[in-house]
Amino acid sequence: MMTTRISVVEKILSANDRLASENRARFQAAGVFAINLMASPGAGKTSLVEQTVSVLKGQLRIGMVNGDIATCFDADRAAAAGATAVQINTGGNCHLDAVMLQSALPQLDLSNLDLLIVENVGNLVCPAEFQLGTHKSVLVASIPEGDDKPYKYPGMYRGADVVVINKTDLLPYVPFRMDFFRKGIEALNPGVTQFELSCHTGDGLRPWFNWLLESVGQK
Amino acid sequence: MMTTRISVVEKILSANDRLASENRARFQAAGVFAINLMASPGAGKTSLVEQTVSVLKGQLRIGMVNGDIATCFDADRAAAAGATAVQINTGGNCHLDAVMLQSALPQLDLSNLDLLIVENVGNLVCPAEFQLGTHKSVLVASIPEGDDKPYKYPGMYRGADVVVINKTDLLPYVPFRMDFFRKGIEALNPGVTQFELSCHTGDGLRPWFNWLLESVGQK
Repeated sequence: MMTTRISVVEKILSANDRLASENRARFQAAGVFAINLMASPGAGKTSLVEQTVSVLKGQLRIGMVNGDIATCFDADRAAAAGATAVQINTGGNCHLDAVMLQSALPQLDLSNLDLLIVENVGNLVCPAEFQLGTHKSVLVASIPEGDDKPYKYPGMYRGADVVVINKTDLLPYVPFRMDFFRKGIEALNPGVTQFELSCHTGDGLRPWFNWLLESVGQK
Repeated sequence: MMTTRISVVEKILSANDRLASENRARFQAAGVFAINLMASPGAGKTSLVEQTVSVLKGQLRIGMVNGDIATCFDADRAAAAGATAVQINTGGNCHLDAVMLQSALPQLDLSNLDLLIVENVGNLVCPAEFQLGTHKSVLVASIPEGDDKPYKYPGMYRGADVVVINKTDLLPYVPFRMDFFRKGIEALNPGVTQFELSCHTGDGLRPWFNWLLESVGQK
């Protein structure tokens, strides 16, 4: 059973990579900078999107694709903040893949966008395995999740281009050793770009905004 | 591709259910009450285990199986609290399944246990699909994850026998509408047993302990 399963999974991943390349080519052709936003459930992906869209919508044309098992809460929140938003309901699937993203793209006018944020399903395991064709993978961690997460979910931390550490406003109320957490990240992904911020209070957001603006500018 | 994949997944689930039945039979024969503890990463599964084992170890003989992608932090914590603990490293797999649990059982003397806690991989999607053979599924939610989680992860909330709402000590510091959260649970899983508690402060733990003691007593 296991052999069959692995073989099928390999075929799926290979097909996925091909479609991810097609997605990337479309982003390149349209001059869109695209990020894959990943995190545990409730780490604050949508709050980060809300803050980002609210502040940067005068400078950037921002599109959103929101992946969720069910509901369109997140697309509604992104749209309310000022983004062009498309919801994908995965119907039980634990991650977005390149074909799901590809099927959503016709609903967005890429030529009218500078930045595309793809918000993945809240899951610290499966999304890491599926390339979407985005330029950068952004992992949102959060303080109340605990400082052991890089050690316990190495695949996700190893594959991230950026780690956003959210909910720093909760540091006084929960046990969290920032040095232990950072040591885990460094061991897996030395020198990875990191931001500490709080979407709840707004503290620390400016360096994140600057990184996005610079990344879009380099496209 | 999708047809093949679904067919293979169905075969895997069917084989899994058979092995889960075998696990259940072993628990029954040994007179062990077994629970499948599931949650998002960082919701507090291991903290709940630590509190439970620390307080109940004089009354119950408690065994643990801890599933994680990597590390044995959780088994170490459970063992330090006084449980007989076995770690399963899933090597990237996003959930425990019945065969993984079955392979761990020979390391535990079931005839010497009253309660077996199986701590699943931190994931609010995939573990719901794989029966392990345990008697009850316990879902640990946590306040900082946000009040929209039942709506966004219906499979997990629908399948739970018990919902533990952890980190109530953080209610003053995060936006969380308890009535909206509970309404979501009720819609999916009417009348499900619920406990509100804080593993950090110890508040609210007694009803959870009583539920465990009663459940073990009924075996």
